[in-house]
Amino acid sequence: MNAREAIRDLVAEYGHLIDEDRLEDWLGLFAEDCTYVVIARENVEQKLPLPLLSCDNKRMLRDRVASYRDVNEYNLHSDRHVIGGVRFRDESEGAWRIDASYSLFQTDVEGATRLFLVGCYEMGGVFEAGQPRLKAVRVIVDTASIPTLLATPI
Amino acid sequence: MNAREAIRDLVAEYGHLIDEDRLEDWLGLFAEDCTYVVIARENVEQKLPLPLLSCDNKRMLRDRVASYRDVNEYNLHSDRHVIGGVRFRDESEGAWRIDASYSLFQTDVEGATRLFLVGCYEMGGVFEAGQPRLKAVRVIVDTASIPTLLATPI
Amino acid sequence: MNAREAIRDLVAEYGHLIDEDRLEDWLGLFAEDCTYVVIARENVEQKLPLPLLSCDNKRMLRDRVASYRDVNEYNLHSDRHVIGGVRFRDESEGAWRIDASYSLFQTDVEGATRLFLVGCYEMGGVFEAGQPRLKAVRVIVDTASIPTLLATPI
Repeated sequence: MNAREAIRDLVAEYGHLIDEDRLEDWLGLFAEDCTYVVIARENVEQKLPLPLLSCDNKRMLRDRVASYRDVNEYNLHSDRHVIGGVRFRDESEGAWRIDASYSLFQTDVEGATRLFLVGCYEMGGVFEAGQPRLKAVRVIVDTASIPTLLATPI
Repeated sequence: MNAREAIRDLVAEYGHLIDEDRLEDWLGLFAEDCTYVVIARENVEQKLPLPLLSCDNKRMLRDRVASYRDVNEYNLHSDRHVIGGVRFRDESEGAWRIDASYSLFQTDVEGATRLFLVGCYEMGGVFEAGQPRLKAVRVIVDTASIPTLLATPI
Repeated sequence: MNAREAIRDLVAEYGHLIDEDRLEDWLGLFAEDCTYVVIARENVEQKLPLPLLSCDNKRMLRDRVASYRDVNEYNLHSDRHVIGGVRFRDESEGAWRIDASYSLFQTDVEGATRLFLVGCYEMGGVFEAGQPRLKAVRVIVDTASIPTLLATPI
């Protein structure tokens, strides 16, 4: 399998693992040395660095998933990511970089499905033992007014 | 063309044929010996087998399409599937298995477009004469409370 | 990179460039001799040729982008395209033709994101110097009652 296919697989897996609430497996997509940032599009366009959420390394990301497992007893919902075609930006040997637009839908316990967020993933990564791993994920969300607490990863 | 490309083509074709109301051609994507099940995510997660719709073979699926052609005179709408990237789960020689998240929008005769359903396709298939064919399709819908009668396939 | 990959890249690029408000770069995806038509699905199905918007060549398309740059001071919003898997219809040497369903979301200055339109791209193109270029784009929109002025391209 070539590099592009492996990266497409990673992007698809990223969305499915969150949707399946397999957040520990989702963590496994990241390299040990990684960043994960959620930022409003407005701030990106105005070059304001303030993110909605920022994890500077995998330990922080792991803590976040663990605390979500411990405390989350409200805002019960299921997620559904529909991710558009991958735009390849850098495909050099050691590193890669892609963009992919996403739509994220949530369904609550009453069974009401609604559009939650749209935006764009900017993902940078490396290959470790032939497998792509995420090094720098920036999740751009098109709105700064996120309707509910940012509980699960995007 | 390799197997992955052919499977991606099949998934894209699946959505387009329903949207184009070419349900007889959509039937042609299935192997003769096939199953088609629509089931709520809630039931999948709680291991409750009760589906919203279940066809145990292609004849049942064909009947369903035929009866739709005969009786459907209400709930006129057009469908639009937007299907996310394909997640390959099994790519062995004889058989294959994929997942793909979908969003399904409907537009009524007044021209109002709304989100209808989101969920995930779990598709298993074989290759017949070099072409992928669907053997087992399970359509997971994230809500159990489907807003209108389940008229067209998902 | 093979032809299919290059065409997939073009489709992804098409959506991202509009979303990033890089409309001049979006123009660069078209061949000099090109058409760009936006038409309601209803009209396509009833074989009514009347489009919502029609540009018969690249100069017209360029004028449209220029006038958008000059006059657009209202209906400020950001676009987000989520485009489904590409359906390849013709892959002959000199020319190619694909379909791809899209969902288009808009976010206003208050930060409210809503579904704007869904529909299907019918794109035909050629290869120029090894790169795919758009010759004939027909954007089918599932509704004829577009909620706001058709300001940005779809």
